[in-house]
Amino acid sequence: MSENGALPRLGKVLTVDTMNPNVKKVDYAVRGPIVQRAVQIEKELKEGVKKPFEEVIKANIGDAHAMGQQPITFFRQVMALCTYPQLLDDNKFPEDTKSRARRILQSCGGNSIGAYTTSQGIDCVRHDVANYIQRRDGGIPSDPDNIYLTTGASDGIVTILKLLTAGEGRTRTGVMISIPQYPLYSASIAELGAVQVNYYLNEEKCWSLDISELQRSLQAAREHCIPRVLCIINPGNPTGQVQSRQCIEDVIKFAAKENLFLMADEVYQDNVYAEGCEFHSFKKVLFEMGPEYSSKVELASFHSTSKCYMGECGFRGGYMEVINMDPEVKAQLTKLVSVRLCPPAPGQALMDLVVNSPQPGEPSYQTFIKERTAILSALAEKAKLTEEILNTVPGISCNPVQGAMYSFPCIALPERAINAAKAKGQAPDMFYCMKLLEETGICLVPGSGFGQREGTYHFRMTILPPTDKLKILLNKLKEFHQKFTQQYS
Amino acid sequence: MSENGALPRLGKVLTVDTMNPNVKKVDYAVRGPIVQRAVQIEKELKEGVKKPFEEVIKANIGDAHAMGQQPITFFRQVMALCTYPQLLDDNKFPEDTKSRARRILQSCGGNSIGAYTTSQGIDCVRHDVANYIQRRDGGIPSDPDNIYLTTGASDGIVTILKLLTAGEGRTRTGVMISIPQYPLYSASIAELGAVQVNYYLNEEKCWSLDISELQRSLQAAREHCIPRVLCIINPGNPTGQVQSRQCIEDVIKFAAKENLFLMADEVYQDNVYAEGCEFHSFKKVLFEMGPEYSSKVELASFHSTSKCYMGECGFRGGYMEVINMDPEVKAQLTKLVSVRLCPPAPGQALMDLVVNSPQPGEPSYQTFIKERTAILSALAEKAKLTEEILNTVPGISCNPVQGAMYSFPCIALPERAINAAKAKGQAPDMFYCMKLLEETGICLVPGSGFGQREGTYHFRMTILPPTDKLKILLNKLKEFHQKFTQQYS
Ligand SMILES: Cc1ncc(COP(=O)(O)O)c(C=O)c1O
Ligand SMILES: Cc1ncc(COP(=O)(O)O)c(C=O)c1O
Repeated sequence: MSENGALPRLGKVLTVDTMNPNVKKVDYAVRGPIVQRAVQIEKELKEGVKKPFEEVIKANIGDAHAMGQQPITFFRQVMALCTYPQLLDDNKFPEDTKSRARRILQSCGGNSIGAYTTSQGIDCVRHDVANYIQRRDGGIPSDPDNIYLTTGASDGIVTILKLLTAGEGRTRTGVMISIPQYPLYSASIAELGAVQVNYYLNEEKCWSLDISELQRSLQAAREHCIPRVLCIINPGNPTGQVQSRQCIEDVIKFAAKENLFLMADEVYQDNVYAEGCEFHSFKKVLFEMGPEYSSKVELASFHSTSKCYMGECGFRGGYMEVINMDPEVKAQLTKLVSVRLCPPAPGQALMDLVVNSPQPGEPSYQTFIKERTAILSALAEKAKLTEEILNTVPGISCNPVQGAMYSFPCIALPERAINAAKAKGQAPDMFYCMKLLEETGICLVPGSGFGQREGTYHFRMTILPPTDKLKILLNKLKEFHQKFTQQYS
Repeated sequence: MSENGALPRLGKVLTVDTMNPNVKKVDYAVRGPIVQRAVQIEKELKEGVKKPFEEVIKANIGDAHAMGQQPITFFRQVMALCTYPQLLDDNKFPEDTKSRARRILQSCGGNSIGAYTTSQGIDCVRHDVANYIQRRDGGIPSDPDNIYLTTGASDGIVTILKLLTAGEGRTRTGVMISIPQYPLYSASIAELGAVQVNYYLNEEKCWSLDISELQRSLQAAREHCIPRVLCIINPGNPTGQVQSRQCIEDVIKFAAKENLFLMADEVYQDNVYAEGCEFHSFKKVLFEMGPEYSSKVELASFHSTSKCYMGECGFRGGYMEVINMDPEVKAQLTKLVSVRLCPPAPGQALMDLVVNSPQPGEPSYQTFIKERTAILSALAEKAKLTEEILNTVPGISCNPVQGAMYSFPCIALPERAINAAKAKGQAPDMFYCMKLLEETGICLVPGSGFGQREGTYHFRMTILPPTDKLKILLNKLKEFHQKFTQQYS
């Protein structure tokens, strides 16, 4: 730029050289080059281009409906009634769907889901969320004033990270995230200009979290920033582990000792499959640890309509609960969310149905339970299937998929494959996944998109394809891996 | 913070002293103290507290459905079908609503509106938006690749401002915004840490925009930042003016000469009421000015499902079109929006219906036109009514409400009222609006929330209440203003 502050007269105002440098640093693999190529291939197949496969099987993103999962009838009935209230006169809709819809509409401005809601979210929905949390956590109270409805969990996570980002240089906020991680975290940290602080999950111990590793990571980070937040994903994405109660307690103690704000991403709270595993919310464990902790540790936890048995990603419903947040900061948070007016009202309504689902005796109860159980059982079966088949492949080793919707197996890559990748300027697992896509139509995300220990290679695949397709996928993958290994040995 | 970078062991991690300083600077009046007090008063009324009025009349926010406007039947029918496709077998729904719903569902993953969409937005919706723009602009082509669907226009505006924010100190990005402005702009600028550069609209000339004022503002700003963006709201919020074609052409020339990125907020494009006024899109004028401009000037324009005759604020649908954006920057934009996965699918579907509304001969056409015309005529009538009644009040002077949904009259406040306000630490027009609320139940937003010339006072009121309520409101306001003036004279 010229001396007098004017931009040069030629060329664009906005270029990669003049744009926001933090945005440039953002990296986002889940929708990166592999997925772009997959979309292209789908087009080519449609246009009749010959390929060694007939369709692209996408196992790259946790999008249940896109993989054929059917929506829960009750949810969609109530949503249709909220959308077009003339249907309230229709006999085809069970009474409980109508009463739910009426209740939601009564809390909307002008009784319309087309009105802006209060910025924190519709009052009755926040009350229902608080009641849900209280039930879930064995009676530990939840205050609707601490609930913020969000545009998917993503929105809540970014908002809390934004509040926490401050300082310059060595006083910049450090955000501790697991490696491997869900890349929303690294991307938001980059965008906000905060400092990413990595702690590694223990692959040998089923992707569990070691406090000694947290301590190492924190100590190292304090050399160059001020770590102020510790992010936990439980059940884990991309690693599918479920944390033990003991581990959560240890993490809370660590956060208390080291003065860290806790962010608990619990969007997979219903997705627990493995024998002996159970979901424990951070909120519940925190309060069970007694006032020494429960009156002190700052916690934000996140939930979403996108995962669990709902899979309603398109609605972008979500909530967060903030615990022990400074009241002045809470006022700032409320102000901040008001700038964007409000989260989408349909997503809020759907969140309400998730936390206030049909009860025994209500007309929709049986169907609801049947549908939910079918989805969760199928997921449990597919979790097991994935682990079993992958572990039969020499060179692939896969931890149990205890929860969530993903497997993150370790793959052994021959030296020559690694060199071939390097020659192409690609990460070795990107090279592997790209070849897999081109040869089999299977779309996975390379481990490098989530982070992994130097010198190890992984991919993430979802367990969401229907069972028959998943079997095909796993067997093709097996065949591919063997061929790939031979080719580069 | 202590020397070694550790936080003090006592107290909170996140306080107003340690939080993001940019967030602290954000100011947001539309949902500020007046509105909070209004909500409180409503509660008090419900609890039986006696007040000199029976209900709160909210004229503070552009939320049509909340003010009783009925949704367009066609929109809600198609949305209900998309939500609960079992209804596609129902005879009550006209054929064109069904074909629209089928088409949208076919472009959704797994044919479900509950799937994530591509981050830029559903393909067929982006195509329909491009076709709409092309029709609207007399055939000037629009490329679906330049369309990004958004979570309301708010989301698009913040995203573009984010891309444009760079530099430090004197090289920081300056964002030129009109004063008075829609406070999303000032709030986002503060949050991003960009520099707000004010240019004043000419109240004497019906809130029009003078190029000489743009020039003055730009020159002054270049002393301390690098102005790189010029934001225009047309039709205007909060000022209700509609820009002439000449003015738009002059603005474009100015932007070209001074190398400014243009942001055209056109969410009120159907809300034009005054004789002789017409909506001209920046895109159209730009292309009519010939290749010297149309191949060069960078423009992002914004639209929304929230305004016009739709008023579907709760769905948070919107789009932006980017023109002449550097391809590398566009790739960065696509990456950036992918971090949050996608805008809400129901909002995208609704945006599709807005740009692809019923055509002559289709079964829904007659009703659609009737409903749309009724809403727009009522708004035109209320625009006139507002101006007329307000201008009968000594001490209030009100420009014609040429478009949008707001009037921003100038109010003369007696010296003693100004002093009384100052004694309370309030802006004088905040003092006025607060008193108005307490005495009459009318909820307006003080001009200070939007910005105004030093020493002048205004309020913003929407013209959205139903005609009979609007009349009551205006007459109560008149009475209040006279009493207030007497009391403080
Ligand atoms: C761990 C985790 N957190 C948050 C999200 C975001 O979900 P949403 O914004 O759709 O609620 C996801 C989505 O995959 C996730 O896996
Ligand atoms: C000028 C202007 N731009 C943008 C918006 C945001 O609209 P939404 O985000 O609901 O699309 C509004 C809302 O009032 C507005 O008045």
